[in-house]
Amino acid sequence: MSVTLDSDDSVVVLAHEQFPGRAKTAVGVLRYADYDVAAVLDRAHAGERVIDHVPDVDDAPIVESMDAALEMDPDALVIGISPIGGAFDESWRPDVQTAIDAGCDVISGLHYFLADDPEFADSAAESGADLVDVRRPPADLGVSEGQAGQVDADVVLTVGTDCNTGKMTTTLELVAAARAQGIDAGFVPTGQTGIMIAGWGIPVDRTIADFAAGAVERMVLDAAADHDVLFVEGQGTIVHPAYSGVTCSLLHGAMPDALVLTHSAGREAIHGYESVALPPVETYVDLYESLAAPVAPTQVAAGALDTRAFEADDAAREAVTAYGDAIGAPATDPIRFGAETILDELP
Amino acid sequence: MSVTLDSDDSVVVLAHEQFPGRAKTAVGVLRYADYDVAAVLDRAHAGERVIDHVPDVDDAPIVESMDAALEMDPDALVIGISPIGGAFDESWRPDVQTAIDAGCDVISGLHYFLADDPEFADSAAESGADLVDVRRPPADLGVSEGQAGQVDADVVLTVGTDCNTGKMTTTLELVAAARAQGIDAGFVPTGQTGIMIAGWGIPVDRTIADFAAGAVERMVLDAAADHDVLFVEGQGTIVHPAYSGVTCSLLHGAMPDALVLTHSAGREAIHGYESVALPPVETYVDLYESLAAPVAPTQVAAGALDTRAFEADDAAREAVTAYGDAIGAPATDPIRFGAETILDELP
Repeated sequence: MSVTLDSDDSVVVLAHEQFPGRAKTAVGVLRYADYDVAAVLDRAHAGERVIDHVPDVDDAPIVESMDAALEMDPDALVIGISPIGGAFDESWRPDVQTAIDAGCDVISGLHYFLADDPEFADSAAESGADLVDVRRPPADLGVSEGQAGQVDADVVLTVGTDCNTGKMTTTLELVAAARAQGIDAGFVPTGQTGIMIAGWGIPVDRTIADFAAGAVERMVLDAAADHDVLFVEGQGTIVHPAYSGVTCSLLHGAMPDALVLTHSAGREAIHGYESVALPPVETYVDLYESLAAPVAPTQVAAGALDTRAFEADDAAREAVTAYGDAIGAPATDPIRFGAETILDELP
Repeated sequence: MSVTLDSDDSVVVLAHEQFPGRAKTAVGVLRYADYDVAAVLDRAHAGERVIDHVPDVDDAPIVESMDAALEMDPDALVIGISPIGGAFDESWRPDVQTAIDAGCDVISGLHYFLADDPEFADSAAESGADLVDVRRPPADLGVSEGQAGQVDADVVLTVGTDCNTGKMTTTLELVAAARAQGIDAGFVPTGQTGIMIAGWGIPVDRTIADFAAGAVERMVLDAAADHDVLFVEGQGTIVHPAYSGVTCSLLHGAMPDALVLTHSAGREAIHGYESVALPPVETYVDLYESLAAPVAPTQVAAGALDTRAFEADDAAREAVTAYGDAIGAPATDPIRFGAETILDELP
């Protein structure tokens, strides 16, 4: 991404007719982004407030159009929803056009690249707005030079026993908990939703395979210049039949000082590959550590367990304890019980 | 690749002014390709014979131009040399044009894509010739479905302790040795030179990272329909700071029945990453086997050692024996001592 949003910036989040239930990115941005959300665009809820729908985030007005949001002087418009297939909904065109004409950058995770839309591209060239398509990796990526281990910042990578085990959420909760303790923590986003939330990043799974570790290295080097601790969002799992290469590239590209192993309680097989049983969680500890060792030694310092399968907190606590025993490291459910337990174990 | 060359086909190999010393692909094609080489194009050596320069391959005439080669009625022209940067040398244009106009397919591993050259593209559309740029992965790749383990053919994957440890050569020597024993063996090429030699294949390192294992799976499924045993060309090494993701995708995408571990005697650090020491060879056995196990269990069945560092055969034999002892499997140098030792160990 050519644009970096930081805590001084404010954005408008487009979520027409889908806020909040079908607007995962919009809600993620409200919950985790550093930058300020000045308004949410949803013509179905115009006049209401964000906290009417999502109680535990900073409040913002819901307005019907970018025209109405311009008076808040936003820096960017973030596309916070995605139709199936990542197409562009033509009903959003007036809002995007208004943003561009006002000089606001537009940040999109759609498969439809805004920068390839001639109308938007021409207008952006005129107004100076940047059109940022986060699904498109930079064209100038190269192979990793194996330098991420040299940075001054401590680097923590989340890894998992499968996809959808809470790697992004755990990473973001760790960043928030670290900052709450006054630590200068940076988030290194590696997937589309994380990139939308952070306002920068490279979608590692969309890079050319030879450049995947290089993309991770570049992000770590860049972010390490600005922070004392980096929390790198992991992807997939090292035993995934399709995505393990991306996971491996993250492990060797980030050269982390510590790993946090995420798992979803009750998960028995790789999601979507039911014939591939998850090995015991301790096997993952061995695999991640032994694979990292020749390139950049590291260890699983803590575990994060998604305990949504348990209704009662007592059962969840028992599961967390058993999980920690199995992996030989302290564990918690960062959503249910907070991320501090993990933070205490990190370098 | 949209064209598959097989043993019924004959090709002309372009190697102007660089045969044989600087024509690695041309020599590889002569040595290993299934298809017949009708002629080599090299205006500097026109009138001579291939065996005047490369004694241990099937002979063919060296001619000055594609015009002269057309009388042999070839099926395709293979670009057998590559300038630094993979550019197209305009002095080759008349030969390529002649081939296309005669309906010959043209197969190129250059970074310059022939199919994007308007002149060539127009002519090919007219004559029906295919322009095959092997460096461009197919546009319709997808994620692996984890099906390669289901094929009837036995699948053997070469893996390595580093890049440039003889994975392609070992794989091709195994194919040749198996065929000499009457086994219906197929070669699954995964890199540019292998693809040129085979006349088909996907450059796995150039695919989108999420689709790398899927590309391998597709090739295994395709080739398994035609052969009893498949030898899959490996790439990189599982402890490579930049390329390990590609290696991991090959391991999980191919779901091999057996691994052959290649090593280069005397190598102490990852090529180009001198600060990354090679771990002991037995560590690689553990890593490859333990990483494969949860997805598709396999084992290192044999070793291939590049013994070029030893002038004397005795010293080479000692090194091979020590290497075999270290990895706990029979080993050989397939170039120096033949590949049969390995073949005996395979399923």
